[in-house]
Amino acid sequence: MEEIAGFHVELTESHMSNTTVADLFNVPSHNPSFFSVKESAVYKGPLLDFCIPVNLHFPPPQMVQRISERLPEILRYYPDYAEVHAKHIAAIAGVPSECIVPANGSTEIITRLCHLTRGPILTPIPTFSRWTDLPNELGIPLHTIKHEVRRNFRLEVAELVSRAKELDVRMLVISNPNNPTGAWFEAGEIEELVLSLPQIELIVIDESFLDFADLESAVNLILRADNLVVVKSLGKSLGWHGVRLGYAAMNSLAADRLRSQLPFWNVNGLAAFILKSISEFKDEFRQSLALVAKDREYMLTQLERIPGLRVFPSKANFLYAELPRGVPGLELRDRLLEHYGLMVRECSNKIGSSERYLRLAVQTREAVDLLAQALSHELTASNQPTV
Amino acid sequence: MEEIAGFHVELTESHMSNTTVADLFNVPSHNPSFFSVKESAVYKGPLLDFCIPVNLHFPPPQMVQRISERLPEILRYYPDYAEVHAKHIAAIAGVPSECIVPANGSTEIITRLCHLTRGPILTPIPTFSRWTDLPNELGIPLHTIKHEVRRNFRLEVAELVSRAKELDVRMLVISNPNNPTGAWFEAGEIEELVLSLPQIELIVIDESFLDFADLESAVNLILRADNLVVVKSLGKSLGWHGVRLGYAAMNSLAADRLRSQLPFWNVNGLAAFILKSISEFKDEFRQSLALVAKDREYMLTQLERIPGLRVFPSKANFLYAELPRGVPGLELRDRLLEHYGLMVRECSNKIGSSERYLRLAVQTREAVDLLAQALSHELTASNQPTV
Repeated sequence: MEEIAGFHVELTESHMSNTTVADLFNVPSHNPSFFSVKESAVYKGPLLDFCIPVNLHFPPPQMVQRISERLPEILRYYPDYAEVHAKHIAAIAGVPSECIVPANGSTEIITRLCHLTRGPILTPIPTFSRWTDLPNELGIPLHTIKHEVRRNFRLEVAELVSRAKELDVRMLVISNPNNPTGAWFEAGEIEELVLSLPQIELIVIDESFLDFADLESAVNLILRADNLVVVKSLGKSLGWHGVRLGYAAMNSLAADRLRSQLPFWNVNGLAAFILKSISEFKDEFRQSLALVAKDREYMLTQLERIPGLRVFPSKANFLYAELPRGVPGLELRDRLLEHYGLMVRECSNKIGSSERYLRLAVQTREAVDLLAQALSHELTASNQPTV
Repeated sequence: MEEIAGFHVELTESHMSNTTVADLFNVPSHNPSFFSVKESAVYKGPLLDFCIPVNLHFPPPQMVQRISERLPEILRYYPDYAEVHAKHIAAIAGVPSECIVPANGSTEIITRLCHLTRGPILTPIPTFSRWTDLPNELGIPLHTIKHEVRRNFRLEVAELVSRAKELDVRMLVISNPNNPTGAWFEAGEIEELVLSLPQIELIVIDESFLDFADLESAVNLILRADNLVVVKSLGKSLGWHGVRLGYAAMNSLAADRLRSQLPFWNVNGLAAFILKSISEFKDEFRQSLALVAKDREYMLTQLERIPGLRVFPSKANFLYAELPRGVPGLELRDRLLEHYGLMVRECSNKIGSSERYLRLAVQTREAVDLLAQALSHELTASNQPTV
């Protein structure tokens, strides 16, 4: 047992080799699942996850209890049809329910939109990997604009508009706030962008992390721009990724067309129950988002203190961090898991990023303290000869 | 309060009109959801559902408890990737995991297969409505063969083979046992059918109700027939429709192609947990299916006693029943709901059936007794002047 700044680190024979850890992370893109890492027993103690950006302050205990008690009743029968979910989502999103397409997670929408377009697609990178990997898998021409570090990864609307016109793209995809950089567009910028490009078949604004930001949704623009689709994951905000719930909002004709591509009963019974119950937990939901914002502030302060680590402004529930030049991110990721039980998202498999960047999900203060200690130690150690 | 054969029936002003009940059932096909009927308060007491054929003897209480206790852990993170689910399903199905495509319910598979084929499709009718409604919605040529009452709705392989050849169809869809008739093919018949039609692009055997039958799955034939896809819903067998879990089994190349059509994380965290846990509850699962078979036997005996009602042999967890000539099935359905709180599936919106047929999900003995009493009363009453 070794002690590093009050943090007990077990270093035993039973630790798996780097190769095995790397194998775990050897998924085509995204992360290995939390469960696969947990079950691999790479680290013997409890794991702390900084990979999956999820609202840790929701759902509240009363909601969990209610669901637990009614589980058989909730799950016995087929869930409701899409129109029932659409009504509940419409009440949250503030647009007519005929404009809403409920989905088995936002990924179901992303998958269908990519299958439906001929492209070319234009998207700023780095971004959520499904938006780049799927077009590549499907052989759809994909153009990218790189978020630049010098502007804290923020993009200029004028540049996006001119690139979209110049490349004559059929589909433009913006994630706001951006995943993984945390950079954002203000509502006015999105409005300018959308209204400047009426000739594009499809403009997608992926607002999966917007709940964590003090930003206005672009959803009302669907009434003014027929080519606009706002995509949103609800799992992140509701604190349960595994429940699979998301939606798209667009003009009602386009919504009809997209809906016809999706299976009946695509929203499971548990997700449906949560949707129905959410109106009773509005206050708790708002409070949970405020808590995430506080956690983000704390995390930013703690990480900024680490020598050599650069952390960027973010309006999402994760922070994008740049490692000091020469620090191998993949090895750092493996060391953090093997020696500290800390799972971090290193970005080498994200187009437009590299292993020099980590996307760190906002965590509790206790978890952040452990991460800060571990990172401080590792980043200092890496500048010295290995022990 | 009126008493009919010991069965209390509340007949109050608050009962909704027939029109409103009919509105509830006025969904494009399938049933209204249990929740929509419950929430409509058409009937004031507890509802008994004979519409949704689900295993009422599973999951066992220990499994429900385990899930309830671990809910936040199960749902917090993204579920596993498809390959993990495929391994668990492969262990159940007894074929290599690369042949398995896990799905958000069998409907997700059905939807994609229908979107992928150009047709023509041939299917015996009546059948699960998605198999007829989707081709119609998508404008895919659909040919049908009608199950004949004179053979208890069983079909001859030779007839199917010759019709498929004669019509030069690209896709043949068989549900075994058939939904809604409960009629079936023996394993040898399916083998003969599949091996006689190597020229067809796709032969789909939908085995969503096979667990309730003493029939062998066609799944091993995928190793001998490249054009065979076995589709299966697991929600019915596992007792929780709302959980959304199904799969398709086929040769590994075809499986790769189909998988590429489906979204990542299409199987939610709860379904994934159930899949992982199922091996520990194998005995309870087998016992539950035996109990359903006993319930079916009891239900058949009770319903066969009702004068004028004809009930057909079934290997599924539902019975197909023919009403006496002249009895309006739609009105009967509404009366059973309004006056007795009994929800039954009347088949007028199923192609190849009519309102003269009910598909009655196997229920507990107590529920069957109530249904038998209500049906006896209604079928007798309908032959007499209305009170």
